Amino acid sequence: MNKITLDHGSGGKLTLELIETVFKAKNGLDSAIIEDIAFTTDSHSINPLFFKGGNIGKLSVSGTVNDLLCVGARPLYLSSAFIIEAGFDMEKLEKIVESMTKEAENANVKIVCGDTKVVENGKCDGVYINTSGIGKIIKPIDGQGVKDKDVVIVSGTVGDHGFAILNERENLNLSSSLKSDVSNLTHLLVPLIESELDIKFIRDPTRGGLAMCLNELCYNRDFGVEIYEEGIPTREDVRVMSEILGIEPYYSANEGKVVIVSSKEDADKALHILKQSELGKNAAIIGKITKDNPKKVVLHTKFDTKRILKMPIADKMPRIC
Amino acid sequence: MNKITLDHGSGGKLTLELIETVFKAKNGLDSAIIEDIAFTTDSHSINPLFFKGGNIGKLSVSGTVNDLLCVGARPLYLSSAFIIEAGFDMEKLEKIVESMTKEAENANVKIVCGDTKVVENGKCDGVYINTSGIGKIIKPIDGQGVKDKDVVIVSGTVGDHGFAILNERENLNLSSSLKSDVSNLTHLLVPLIESELDIKFIRDPTRGGLAMCLNELCYNRDFGVEIYEEGIPTREDVRVMSEILGIEPYYSANEGKVVIVSSKEDADKALHILKQSELGKNAAIIGKITKDNPKKVVLHTKFDTKRILKMPIADKMPRIC
Repeated sequence: MNKITLDHGSGGKLTLELIETVFKAKNGLDSAIIEDIAFTTDSHSINPLFFKGGNIGKLSVSGTVNDLLCVGARPLYLSSAFIIEAGFDMEKLEKIVESMTKEAENANVKIVCGDTKVVENGKCDGVYINTSGIGKIIKPIDGQGVKDKDVVIVSGTVGDHGFAILNERENLNLSSSLKSDVSNLTHLLVPLIESELDIKFIRDPTRGGLAMCLNELCYNRDFGVEIYEEGIPTREDVRVMSEILGIEPYYSANEGKVVIVSSKEDADKALHILKQSELGKNAAIIGKITKDNPKKVVLHTKFDTKRILKMPIADKMPRIC
Repeated sequence: MNKITLDHGSGGKLTLELIETVFKAKNGLDSAIIEDIAFTTDSHSINPLFFKGGNIGKLSVSGTVNDLLCVGARPLYLSSAFIIEAGFDMEKLEKIVESMTKEAENANVKIVCGDTKVVENGKCDGVYINTSGIGKIIKPIDGQGVKDKDVVIVSGTVGDHGFAILNERENLNLSSSLKSDVSNLTHLLVPLIESELDIKFIRDPTRGGLAMCLNELCYNRDFGVEIYEEGIPTREDVRVMSEILGIEPYYSANEGKVVIVSSKEDADKALHILKQSELGKNAAIIGKITKDNPKKVVLHTKFDTKRILKMPIADKMPRIC
């Protein structure tokens, strides 16, 4: 009999297939757009619960806020539902809730409803948190208008979250300063969405990283993506870890970054707006949409060669969000 | 150090205290009311996943739909987020999703967004499902207008769900026909909410049963509740199980019933509307609001004695939803 595997939940191709076949969901957006309302949900099961740069509470608020922003909405209201393992420390729970409150305040959203379930020891991994969210559409952004010659921008260094979690979970000690980039992006993205610029696509490259995000962008479309390694912002320690572990930063999750596609004409102005925010100070144009390689993501390497960045079958790092 | 226990998640007094102290939530409603929008969330971790009358999928859709109805909203959109244990049968997952689709259709709601996470074997109990929901307020119902002499109605037999789950989980074989009452109540409640009747309170007595529900109704208020055992609809097999197990049906969960408080004048008309629906055919007036015993729920027994139905510290049956 067919069984669910960890790979089905990794955010790669197998997750996409599960969603299409079992859940019959097709539009590929993380938030639903209902008239002028955006609605989204995310469950978080990260291990470890506390990590450099944040914890599962901050992650769950940021993740849901960012999913609303990605369809062009101003995030407004969140729910939070906890599944807690019996025996879990009350103090840790309080810390997680405090982080959620703080991140919600920072993101200008209100947590308005919740739920609490407790399960036996060994039926959970400390705490799982679901956050669902409602936002008001400022300008609907669904990727449908993306076309040849549009420009691809990333809002900062890629791969930080995935490598930070791996470094900590596996006690690799490969970097002392690397931390997760987990953050809500309200202050980075609302000005961009409110601008008159022609912004066609915004997506947070979480599970499966930049490679998954760009592959989803051109999945079943008549265009492809070309990106240039030279221009992709990457931390030095992430690059080093990447080489040691044999996992490219493009496949590693981010929790405080977005990929943006704008018209060619508006790309520089979009970049300018992003750079006004501390969260976007490393933003960069990394490539373009092209008709030359439909459905494919082509990476131009530093050595002036080209190769295809395939859609990952499964993330190499499970339980990172 | 203080630890979370199963009792913290049982839906009784300890859950209420956890919600008040750690989550700082106060209003006591399961759904938030934001202008003309209702928003709610529920995570489900029931054991067993499949039971007589339904499964975790049907339960998760019904539960969220019913929470929206309880604040006077027409349920419209749901999210569904799965946490799945690695090794779970794909076929079972498909059955659960089918039940959700069917129940959503029956309730006239659309499942518009979702999320899927997979965790290692031993970090879940098959499947946990979070469903959050959005509804449009027809008439806000928040219990604030409840006052002396108002009438308390229950929409059908009490305790079915809790005893059905217990019978099955513990292989008690105490009833062959008992099944969970799990059901969405859209068709029962929308006509009542849309009517001109003075409906002041609607609540689904899930965890902690009728006793918890009525105790929450008069929690920190200047009135109490009096109910009459004679009038409370209860299945014969539930009564028998109740005596054998020493658990009163008033403390056992329901997943397809509501408690309603209406003005004295409108009680008979409300009962009439409920009885039009198959889901409300056993609806009955069970008691009244009174100033005589503020903050307390008093049960008039069949033997003409009185006793207080206390707020349960913890449900005696964990993991029933």
